[in-house]
Amino acid sequence: MDTQRKEMKLEKPLIQAGMAGRITTPALVAAVSNTGALGTIGAGYLCAEDLQKQIQQIKKMTDRPFAVNVFATDLTAVSSSVNPMQTRLNKMRDELGLEKKQAVVHVQDDLHEKIDVLLRENIPMISTAFGVLSPKYIAKLKENGTVLIGMATNLAEAKQLVAAGYDSVVAQGYEAGGHRGTFEIDTYPKGCNIGLLTLLQECLQHLSVPVIAAGGITTKEQVCALLGMGAFAVQVGTAFLVAKEAGTNASYRKALLKATAEDTVITKVFSGRPARAIRNRFVEEIESSGVAIQPFPIQNEMTKDIRAAGKKQNMAAIQSLWAGQGVGMLHKEEAAADIIHRLLG
Amino acid sequence: MDTQRKEMKLEKPLIQAGMAGRITTPALVAAVSNTGALGTIGAGYLCAEDLQKQIQQIKKMTDRPFAVNVFATDLTAVSSSVNPMQTRLNKMRDELGLEKKQAVVHVQDDLHEKIDVLLRENIPMISTAFGVLSPKYIAKLKENGTVLIGMATNLAEAKQLVAAGYDSVVAQGYEAGGHRGTFEIDTYPKGCNIGLLTLLQECLQHLSVPVIAAGGITTKEQVCALLGMGAFAVQVGTAFLVAKEAGTNASYRKALLKATAEDTVITKVFSGRPARAIRNRFVEEIESSGVAIQPFPIQNEMTKDIRAAGKKQNMAAIQSLWAGQGVGMLHKEEAAADIIHRLLG
Repeated sequence: MDTQRKEMKLEKPLIQAGMAGRITTPALVAAVSNTGALGTIGAGYLCAEDLQKQIQQIKKMTDRPFAVNVFATDLTAVSSSVNPMQTRLNKMRDELGLEKKQAVVHVQDDLHEKIDVLLRENIPMISTAFGVLSPKYIAKLKENGTVLIGMATNLAEAKQLVAAGYDSVVAQGYEAGGHRGTFEIDTYPKGCNIGLLTLLQECLQHLSVPVIAAGGITTKEQVCALLGMGAFAVQVGTAFLVAKEAGTNASYRKALLKATAEDTVITKVFSGRPARAIRNRFVEEIESSGVAIQPFPIQNEMTKDIRAAGKKQNMAAIQSLWAGQGVGMLHKEEAAADIIHRLLG
Repeated sequence: MDTQRKEMKLEKPLIQAGMAGRITTPALVAAVSNTGALGTIGAGYLCAEDLQKQIQQIKKMTDRPFAVNVFATDLTAVSSSVNPMQTRLNKMRDELGLEKKQAVVHVQDDLHEKIDVLLRENIPMISTAFGVLSPKYIAKLKENGTVLIGMATNLAEAKQLVAAGYDSVVAQGYEAGGHRGTFEIDTYPKGCNIGLLTLLQECLQHLSVPVIAAGGITTKEQVCALLGMGAFAVQVGTAFLVAKEAGTNASYRKALLKATAEDTVITKVFSGRPARAIRNRFVEEIESSGVAIQPFPIQNEMTKDIRAAGKKQNMAAIQSLWAGQGVGMLHKEEAAADIIHRLLG
């Protein structure tokens, strides 16, 4: 295990999850990596240029390795021209003082450009979600010596990652906050909502690569239990949302410190992909509206301006308040280094 | 912890779950208790007379303590006279060669009589599900020195149990097989589907009574992890379904040894209460039928003859194949004592 950890450039068995949406500021990633744990840029929605900037900023703040997380899927998508979801969302826009929208929605993908940045910047570890990277990218990254970490929500997905050449698998339990890593959305929730204690055990029994445990981890006792079972490391997201260095806005932080597991729900209303968030007005209104949720990432693109306004206007009620089930055990904002110290002892 | 375990009459930190439906044969309960773990009669659907008989049989097979599990709710219920669910179920009855049904369904409750049996037979430990026993029963049982164990699916339920005088709480994780212990069905799944690792941690932090961990536990590594976190004991159900002494029928056993976590689903189709089972034809047909599922225990009563025929005709497709998410790690039928040895080492 120790040799593996060295090869994977982990001094401490803890990875800060690559949460998308400007949460993983350069300050957060650097602070985590400076402790010997692994910081990660959540680059899912970043453009290549911004990614490069962030990498360069982090490099000024730490000389330790850090990782970048990207989506393994091609985001390219176009919405239909008449869209009942936009009509429903326009009601909210009206209330928030936003311009109404009805035009066709386009989403462009620049994974290709981002992979180029990662190679150029010589990022030692790349983690991915939502599937398996295409073989051409895997080949390029491996040629460069990059360690590849893939996220799986069941054993079949984990095996696909290993077969494709990934070096390690994150077993993402049902408890996890934010997006389910599920490869197949059409059949959701079939075969994807597995509790961490089960999924980790299955992966440990069946995989030959190091397994990283993720999902709802917010206490030292949980970390000890998971490492004791044989997890190579734990990946922690929600706990870092209240890190002082994180990009989390004030109303979101407040909601996190108040919420418990019972307040979270898996929903597609924000992005079109199932994801765990604190139940709020946005979730309830869109779920009960009966309006068909658009596929990922169209729904994500459509709700973006509204969620941004929610942040700006300090309204937790209309943001995507991603949170794992462990959220009830977070009681204060702390420096990232203190969170890591609390979790690893 | 050791003193507590003694008071609770547990030599080994393992409880065999009180699964209802003739699974927990006297042979199984006695075999478990004879190892120093705690066997439990699943008496939820037993009449008082059968319960008494089983208790007396077990007493001949072991002089160690064993427990009885009952439902904390009053089962008394009457269906409406015209019932679309019966019409839908009649299609299946036809295929199975069963008599069609349409009459009003009555369910009687004899919890009162069962409590009398438990007091008379001096059963040292009673566990309950689906809520909090009424104060009159709690008073009577406590007067008799009975240890009371209640099942909770969230912290609020756990606190209710402790406030009512229960001596210990089972933290039932989302991974668990069979019925969710949820007190409130109308709001399901709000606030009830919490992964074991989170729920256990919350209960340990907030409760003053011993906490028992339950949900998908099928390996020694999981048991070590949970006890290491501070669980007083683990409660194991699914792993005992393939015990040689269990009342599980042959086709159900076969399905268990083939299934994995991905094959299980939480459904109300069998009983009207959410419960985790292996997805089969019955689940798929009734869920996709669009016919309103009757409330518990009417739905349970209505589907009883069909499930019984399924068992008799060796058809796994139309039985309630209760199973937790840990089912994928069960590989063979074993004696109960061997299962306990494998789990506790």
